[in-house]
Amino acid sequence: MKTVNLEQLLEDYKSGWGLEQPFYTDHGIFELEWEHIWKKYWLFAGTIAEIPKAGDYFIYTAQKDSIIIIRGNKGEVYAHYNTCRHRGSLICLEERGNAPKLICPYHQWVYGKDGELLKARLMPDDFDRSFHGLHPVQVRVADGFIFISLAQKPPDFSKVLDDWSPFLKPYQVHKAKVAHKKRYELRTNWKLIAENFRECYHCGPAHPEYCNAVIGANLREPVEELLAERRVEWQNKGLAVDTIDFVDDSFHFAIRYPLRPAVLSYSLDGKAVAIPMGDHQDFNAGVVGLVMYPNFWMDAVSDYMWTMRLTAVSPSRTIIDLTWLVDGAAVEGSDYTIDRLTDFWRITGEQDWKLCENNYRGVESSHYLPGPYAPVELDVARFVDWYVERLREGIAETASL
Amino acid sequence: MKTVNLEQLLEDYKSGWGLEQPFYTDHGIFELEWEHIWKKYWLFAGTIAEIPKAGDYFIYTAQKDSIIIIRGNKGEVYAHYNTCRHRGSLICLEERGNAPKLICPYHQWVYGKDGELLKARLMPDDFDRSFHGLHPVQVRVADGFIFISLAQKPPDFSKVLDDWSPFLKPYQVHKAKVAHKKRYELRTNWKLIAENFRECYHCGPAHPEYCNAVIGANLREPVEELLAERRVEWQNKGLAVDTIDFVDDSFHFAIRYPLRPAVLSYSLDGKAVAIPMGDHQDFNAGVVGLVMYPNFWMDAVSDYMWTMRLTAVSPSRTIIDLTWLVDGAAVEGSDYTIDRLTDFWRITGEQDWKLCENNYRGVESSHYLPGPYAPVELDVARFVDWYVERLREGIAETASL
Amino acid sequence: MKTVNLEQLLEDYKSGWGLEQPFYTDHGIFELEWEHIWKKYWLFAGTIAEIPKAGDYFIYTAQKDSIIIIRGNKGEVYAHYNTCRHRGSLICLEERGNAPKLICPYHQWVYGKDGELLKARLMPDDFDRSFHGLHPVQVRVADGFIFISLAQKPPDFSKVLDDWSPFLKPYQVHKAKVAHKKRYELRTNWKLIAENFRECYHCGPAHPEYCNAVIGANLREPVEELLAERRVEWQNKGLAVDTIDFVDDSFHFAIRYPLRPAVLSYSLDGKAVAIPMGDHQDFNAGVVGLVMYPNFWMDAVSDYMWTMRLTAVSPSRTIIDLTWLVDGAAVEGSDYTIDRLTDFWRITGEQDWKLCENNYRGVESSHYLPGPYAPVELDVARFVDWYVERLREGIAETASL
Repeated sequence: MKTVNLEQLLEDYKSGWGLEQPFYTDHGIFELEWEHIWKKYWLFAGTIAEIPKAGDYFIYTAQKDSIIIIRGNKGEVYAHYNTCRHRGSLICLEERGNAPKLICPYHQWVYGKDGELLKARLMPDDFDRSFHGLHPVQVRVADGFIFISLAQKPPDFSKVLDDWSPFLKPYQVHKAKVAHKKRYELRTNWKLIAENFRECYHCGPAHPEYCNAVIGANLREPVEELLAERRVEWQNKGLAVDTIDFVDDSFHFAIRYPLRPAVLSYSLDGKAVAIPMGDHQDFNAGVVGLVMYPNFWMDAVSDYMWTMRLTAVSPSRTIIDLTWLVDGAAVEGSDYTIDRLTDFWRITGEQDWKLCENNYRGVESSHYLPGPYAPVELDVARFVDWYVERLREGIAETASL
Repeated sequence: MKTVNLEQLLEDYKSGWGLEQPFYTDHGIFELEWEHIWKKYWLFAGTIAEIPKAGDYFIYTAQKDSIIIIRGNKGEVYAHYNTCRHRGSLICLEERGNAPKLICPYHQWVYGKDGELLKARLMPDDFDRSFHGLHPVQVRVADGFIFISLAQKPPDFSKVLDDWSPFLKPYQVHKAKVAHKKRYELRTNWKLIAENFRECYHCGPAHPEYCNAVIGANLREPVEELLAERRVEWQNKGLAVDTIDFVDDSFHFAIRYPLRPAVLSYSLDGKAVAIPMGDHQDFNAGVVGLVMYPNFWMDAVSDYMWTMRLTAVSPSRTIIDLTWLVDGAAVEGSDYTIDRLTDFWRITGEQDWKLCENNYRGVESSHYLPGPYAPVELDVARFVDWYVERLREGIAETASL
Repeated sequence: MKTVNLEQLLEDYKSGWGLEQPFYTDHGIFELEWEHIWKKYWLFAGTIAEIPKAGDYFIYTAQKDSIIIIRGNKGEVYAHYNTCRHRGSLICLEERGNAPKLICPYHQWVYGKDGELLKARLMPDDFDRSFHGLHPVQVRVADGFIFISLAQKPPDFSKVLDDWSPFLKPYQVHKAKVAHKKRYELRTNWKLIAENFRECYHCGPAHPEYCNAVIGANLREPVEELLAERRVEWQNKGLAVDTIDFVDDSFHFAIRYPLRPAVLSYSLDGKAVAIPMGDHQDFNAGVVGLVMYPNFWMDAVSDYMWTMRLTAVSPSRTIIDLTWLVDGAAVEGSDYTIDRLTDFWRITGEQDWKLCENNYRGVESSHYLPGPYAPVELDVARFVDWYVERLREGIAETASL
């Protein structure tokens, strides 16, 4: 069994070149990633459109942790570890539902939506319920997007809120409707998906549908003129236009970019697939793209929003959860159909899943060697820089303890 | 990878509170359990009702060991490791059958039922067959119940025989008939099942059928009066009534307790499901419950007997084998039907399997913390004490070697 | 977790007795085998009958390595690691096909059949393609049989070529036709299969069809007379007759032996199942058997050839790939049918796979002990000697570095 010398690998890392194999395949490095990235940063869980009413909840499973995300009585959102303080049983057994109270199915201990232990039958008089509430998980809501953190002191979220709000507000996610959800379990490392989503070097050959919708995605067309024109139109409508780029150790990103002229939506025929969403009055908002490392991607066109949540399961396993949101007033059948709404990202996504799985199989080779990134893959290189820096930071922190 | 400090965990263990997570999830601790509990004590294998004739055998698989339990020519029972002394092949390939001789399917070495090597064709003249018999496994039969031990010097069994015999004799297991067998493979730790079967804190909400049959199982009814009445009736019939409780380091238990008035059997409607079993003349024997740590539970009513054999496969996997036995003279179709016979424990058992699997998933949480047992869970606390003591003992023995 | 002391095990090894359990079950030893045997020696990949035209390729997967075996423009054969030098993706995604050029499906880097990087779009001017060709794998072709080596300096192959050529030439494999392929994934260690194929102690009871075809396979008949007769006939036809035995550290073997009188082929009825193959004019060539450690077995009769490729996946998993080859001119339906062609080895092979899987299950027992080989198992003992010697050698080399 080869021992991986992570310190050496981190020292040898050369920006502009890919990561060495163990970063994708080694279980020890995976655990460090989990410790220093997944458990330290914010993780996208879902949107409040999924839990519109008090007591509505859904479960997010991250490694061995099942986490209850539940709507409170005043619209607030709570997150709790789904393990009873008595003998540890799961409390919520279903992926989603409504629970006026959280009652453990084993011995019926009763918790409030806020996690407080309300009742524990047949316990002695000196049992102190106040010490036995559910373990809380940090939660923040950004214009309807729910992020949780498994850290006790997660990084500041206010900058994200400030930066993203102008992009998100017009979609009025709190009034939106979940039109469709789809899950994929891929045999690949989560970073290969993240890398895939940070470059369009592959788009020309791999994504004909995407390139039909997005000007320049094939890397063979000028986009400056159209972009400049659109920016003026967007600004006149009060839409955010200035890219929020990754800087230093920041972990969030936002952009607005144009569709081809005459293309109204992410769809196979370029036509709209639903009614304008939220405050939008037409189909001219282009595409808003958000990224938050390590697990969140979102693309929104004028008539729908598509979110991608990654969940790293092991070095070689990643779960992808996709959600399509439309305006709350949109009626299935008349305003949209699931097929037309989801075709574009189902097709484009599945092209990527296949690339990412084949990428993983090749990276596993005894003769895989990191190659140089092409200049058009700069953002991949920057993601990998960010990733390497987080591990370095984490290891340094641990060493200083 | 977190290293588990077992000594510390054992030292920190607090009676009356649950076990820390690693006792349920850690592979190293699982191996120590196997060494110091499963391989040291007696394991229930099955009953002689399963192997009524000479040469009848069945296989019990425990970890990597396949063990042949076979009936000898005079009714005696042998147990052998199912591995040929030539090149190691399995000898018996089927779960059960009849074998006048044990013949290895690879090169046809022939063994007797007692394990002696009778023939090894084409071996040289100086080959000594007497050194190449099957490796024996210790075996004891208690009123028709077959227990094996993988230890060379297993604990004394005579106390078990003495204590249990008065409870078991009336059932005449050697004349009984196997009516049904059912296997479950659960994703849970074996101890969570053992714990589940040592308390009725969960019975009221979880087991309506069971509570309909057993007075007091819901923890909300007085049972003393009925019990006192029944004890007199039972004693008058010569039935054992005094509980054999777990004491010190003992590992077996027996009890007789009453069904509700007018309830004759463990059945959904309270009516009998078969003819009285063995020496019983009526349906008034209540319930006889036996337990032997780590893997045996039995409940017998007047007309049938239900055995549960646990087999720990890994920290998170446990196999449960259930067997329903009826009187040897009972005829399927007229005296009993499989459905009526098995409904009660199938339903009650499956309620428990679900609880135990959900318990495991919650115990895996990074935020699982052992909670306090309720006073009505005293017997769970005692089982856990017993378990912890066995590990302490085992580690001390190893250290002293 | 028991630690395996390999040095001690190797020192204690007693020729003539089986291997201790860890050689079959331990992952560390498996990795050393991979290092010191599978990665050092030659591995059978397939035949050129599978890739008759330029650009025809197939994939051989060995552990994490996917290897492309591709036919060049002049009939030569190349082997490359199937991992792109850019970001590592698999290049060939299908098990077999035809590729004028090897184009990575991710970002379209283009390689020649010889592995040279021909094109990498959008890379900077100073990018040197000549440093980014596919990693080569050593390859040798022996009368149409393709062997690869993952070693940089594999053992000399010329002796194999010289020794085997007289046996193989008459079959004209370069003009042969792949009639059928079949894959099995067995739960057994690869060495148990190798051992099985080096003795006929088991043949009498286990292989009635095989014993019907091969005189003496049951170990109960004299073969000398028939063999002497046949040798004369074979020599008169110019067929090779002298056995190439394993000697010292050699790893290849060849033999010709007779079928029973009146038996023309490996078939259930003894009749021919196809037209004579290659240069053969009749059905009197007996059986040519080849072996190359660690992964190649071949049996050829006058009318067809059967190859067996082993691939060790883990201590307990082995893939077997079988291929049936017939004369290039043979027409399915009229000259042969798949059923008649494959029945003999499908039946005989499946008898062996079952033996080998049951052998593994018994070897896993805590009480498995290596037994003595029977005198008729001498060749098994010699294989095991060879194997043990390779590990000793490998460990010594590593130690001297």
